[in-house]
Amino acid sequence: MFIKDAWYVASWADDLGTTPIARRICDIPLVLYRTATGEAAALVDRCCHRAAPLSLGKVTETGLECGYHGLVFNTEGTCVHIPGQRHIPGTAKVQSFAVIEKDAIVWIWMGDPQAADAGLIVDYPFHNDPVKWPFRHETMPIKANYALMVDNLMDLTHLGYVHVTTIGGNPTVHVEAKMETERTDRGLKFTRWILDADAPPTIAAAVHFEGKVDRWQEFEFIAPGVIKHWAGAVDANTGAYDQGIREGGFMVRIFHGITPETETSCFYFWSIANGFGQDDPATSVEAHRSAKEAFSEDKVVIEQQQQRLTEMGEHDLIDIRSDSARVSMRRTLNRMLDKERIT
Amino acid sequence: MFIKDAWYVASWADDLGTTPIARRICDIPLVLYRTATGEAAALVDRCCHRAAPLSLGKVTETGLECGYHGLVFNTEGTCVHIPGQRHIPGTAKVQSFAVIEKDAIVWIWMGDPQAADAGLIVDYPFHNDPVKWPFRHETMPIKANYALMVDNLMDLTHLGYVHVTTIGGNPTVHVEAKMETERTDRGLKFTRWILDADAPPTIAAAVHFEGKVDRWQEFEFIAPGVIKHWAGAVDANTGAYDQGIREGGFMVRIFHGITPETETSCFYFWSIANGFGQDDPATSVEAHRSAKEAFSEDKVVIEQQQQRLTEMGEHDLIDIRSDSARVSMRRTLNRMLDKERIT
Amino acid sequence: MFIKDAWYVASWADDLGTTPIARRICDIPLVLYRTATGEAAALVDRCCHRAAPLSLGKVTETGLECGYHGLVFNTEGTCVHIPGQRHIPGTAKVQSFAVIEKDAIVWIWMGDPQAADAGLIVDYPFHNDPVKWPFRHETMPIKANYALMVDNLMDLTHLGYVHVTTIGGNPTVHVEAKMETERTDRGLKFTRWILDADAPPTIAAAVHFEGKVDRWQEFEFIAPGVIKHWAGAVDANTGAYDQGIREGGFMVRIFHGITPETETSCFYFWSIANGFGQDDPATSVEAHRSAKEAFSEDKVVIEQQQQRLTEMGEHDLIDIRSDSARVSMRRTLNRMLDKERIT
Repeated sequence: MFIKDAWYVASWADDLGTTPIARRICDIPLVLYRTATGEAAALVDRCCHRAAPLSLGKVTETGLECGYHGLVFNTEGTCVHIPGQRHIPGTAKVQSFAVIEKDAIVWIWMGDPQAADAGLIVDYPFHNDPVKWPFRHETMPIKANYALMVDNLMDLTHLGYVHVTTIGGNPTVHVEAKMETERTDRGLKFTRWILDADAPPTIAAAVHFEGKVDRWQEFEFIAPGVIKHWAGAVDANTGAYDQGIREGGFMVRIFHGITPETETSCFYFWSIANGFGQDDPATSVEAHRSAKEAFSEDKVVIEQQQQRLTEMGEHDLIDIRSDSARVSMRRTLNRMLDKERIT
Repeated sequence: MFIKDAWYVASWADDLGTTPIARRICDIPLVLYRTATGEAAALVDRCCHRAAPLSLGKVTETGLECGYHGLVFNTEGTCVHIPGQRHIPGTAKVQSFAVIEKDAIVWIWMGDPQAADAGLIVDYPFHNDPVKWPFRHETMPIKANYALMVDNLMDLTHLGYVHVTTIGGNPTVHVEAKMETERTDRGLKFTRWILDADAPPTIAAAVHFEGKVDRWQEFEFIAPGVIKHWAGAVDANTGAYDQGIREGGFMVRIFHGITPETETSCFYFWSIANGFGQDDPATSVEAHRSAKEAFSEDKVVIEQQQQRLTEMGEHDLIDIRSDSARVSMRRTLNRMLDKERIT
Repeated sequence: MFIKDAWYVASWADDLGTTPIARRICDIPLVLYRTATGEAAALVDRCCHRAAPLSLGKVTETGLECGYHGLVFNTEGTCVHIPGQRHIPGTAKVQSFAVIEKDAIVWIWMGDPQAADAGLIVDYPFHNDPVKWPFRHETMPIKANYALMVDNLMDLTHLGYVHVTTIGGNPTVHVEAKMETERTDRGLKFTRWILDADAPPTIAAAVHFEGKVDRWQEFEFIAPGVIKHWAGAVDANTGAYDQGIREGGFMVRIFHGITPETETSCFYFWSIANGFGQDDPATSVEAHRSAKEAFSEDKVVIEQQQQRLTEMGEHDLIDIRSDSARVSMRRTLNRMLDKERIT
């Protein structure tokens, strides 16, 4: 059961070329590719002739050519060439999906293409500002339902347990962080402040602080699968919390795009934009490396969590205080699912 | 659902010795072996005592001995020895299958052994003529229904797409080849001519031609799983097409034996007999190598095709003009299946 | 379907420390661990918060801490700490199992912990006597139902087929061994004598004999999964059989603990205690190595036997004379299962 009427990240724009990519989204096998003129496209990855995957084919001047018997399809899935015959029957077509490229991302709408409203695509200008926000990105396949990955980002108390030696540090500071949550039209926002605390290992390694730091984490969840994340740390008591002075320390913007693959797997597309050491490419490389190390720690836990849920279901589970944002997020997903079932 | 009343290739004769082989055919786990006197045999690969696979056992003077507790079976599946007891109950037996060795092949009849008519086994004399037709053979496991492999050989327009850099070359010549099809009692025959065309890469590498070639492909399908294939090329306009002069160029005979393993896997037994460079063993080695390279290209496509069919079925697929032989072949298979269901 | 009201081997005592181990027993995923004070414990391996496996967590002073959000559990499965909140709801708990450490083994009772009677745990004093019975142990995962492994040990005629080059030797001597079987309250005992025979390969390599040997195998099966095994060989006709003189040759005691993992897999815990060369550690190492080699031969057969049974069931299987102890053992298991179903 997937939310279909939504924009998901299909690919990083610079990962998609004329060589077709096979990728399953919402349990539909897709072929993603660019046409000879550079337009991104997505079709069901199954030729309407003998069911060979179109992702084994190649892009020609006239369209995507099946690698088995040479049928050619345009970006709307209409067959435009059948070798050896002039007549192309109207039934010669495959399903196509709406695809839009924006902010370095190829977005896909998994519902009816006619209903795809480009205005609903999240804005993420930080991907278009290489001077202030140089960024690096990653695609992590995760063997867990996408909502488990969103869960993970909605309850940051896990930082002190899962990421103790990386981005977490002391568990208590995360549990006791000041947290303000706000519901939005399309999800929720929350801000967390950890004041006058030790910098965790990866932040301390990225920027030199004299002593304690004030640290913030701002998260905006836009259902179903996008989270904008702004995190930073500055010397303690220098006005970050009460006066909004956030420069001069550590600062990154992280984009999280979580796309369902199957009921028990997803793609975790994330980028990290460096807002503290823009002139030094090595800091961007290191920020990416340390984020990847931390997110790989999440992957281990979430994949095993999925295994337990697959086998044993959700019976007898309890919610705890730190689940509030997570529970709100899940209600939003359920409302969207209900809406699609009614219509 | 398999056609049982038919002879399938079980093994190459020279691959079968007294060391038992476990092989699944028509989804029945079999043990194939030769007795101490060299007779080929096939039993269900499950001892009637504790269900251990008989393929873990060994051939003794008295029969096939189970490797767990030593029961011995003859080639009809009757238990002839139980360690520690004289009386052998009548229930001590395993199912056996009719097996016949002919033309370098061990053939198996998967239906009632009483109905196995040796006269129905295909004749393939080219396996018995090492001077004119030296041959080399291969056993390729393929993770696809056997009919998808037969499909592949019934529509040669795939050569220009799947095999463009090997045996195919220019797609257009295959699409435009002259093709004559003839139905036969047990399947169909077709002949294709590609006249005055460039030799494809593997043929050009095997034989030196001055210029263009005339090229033929003769296929005879004998249901359910055998195809005899004669292919060649000679200098263009030297009488191959209209006068039957086919010597002096490139010429091979390929035997295709396709045996169901499960509903979604098969064994592709093929041989290639060298009819153009018999005195030079290196040409046989190279013909085998290049055929294997090409057939491995088919394997990739067919296995992925199977995955799509397994997941999505055959809905909304269309037939095209080049499918005519394939469709006829499928009708033959369906008639054979229907006949077994009625009786 | 498992017998739950029984003690199974969960682990070797010296393999269990404060680092949690994930282990499935009777198809229940468990976390096994020792507390900070060294007490062995077993809980269902699923946190009651978000279903993360507790085996990813760590042992703290206060209990087993979940590695995701830090909930802490005591050995009874009661949650004793939830980060960020004082109130711990009564529903915050996971299932626990009775665990007792005895004779170098961690035993687990898979039924109601209230019904766990420590008096039912098998006595195995040979694990506590390093001077007379130095031992080495092993944990072998086997992809077969545990009863197939017990079957194996109840019919020793397999020695001459499965272990012909190791502990078996001549098949005939095993088939013709004198065997006396006795039913017991909790299973059965049998003793086998092979008199005036050649020593099999591993025994001949361990101890030098002048000529033929008298060889005994004493087995005691205690349902559902323990077998005590005493085996030895002395020079033939020196009184072993009729006067009970068993010293001076080869002698080992083997503990077999067979614990169900799933319906088609088990853990085979075994130890071998050296009763003939106690002063030479190399003989213990070699006894362990040769037993492991032999038991690995069993593993191959049993795993393939399971595959056949999974696919084809037990239809048309026959019992033979050498099955008598095996059949009696199976009746005992069935009685225990029936008893649990009634209550």
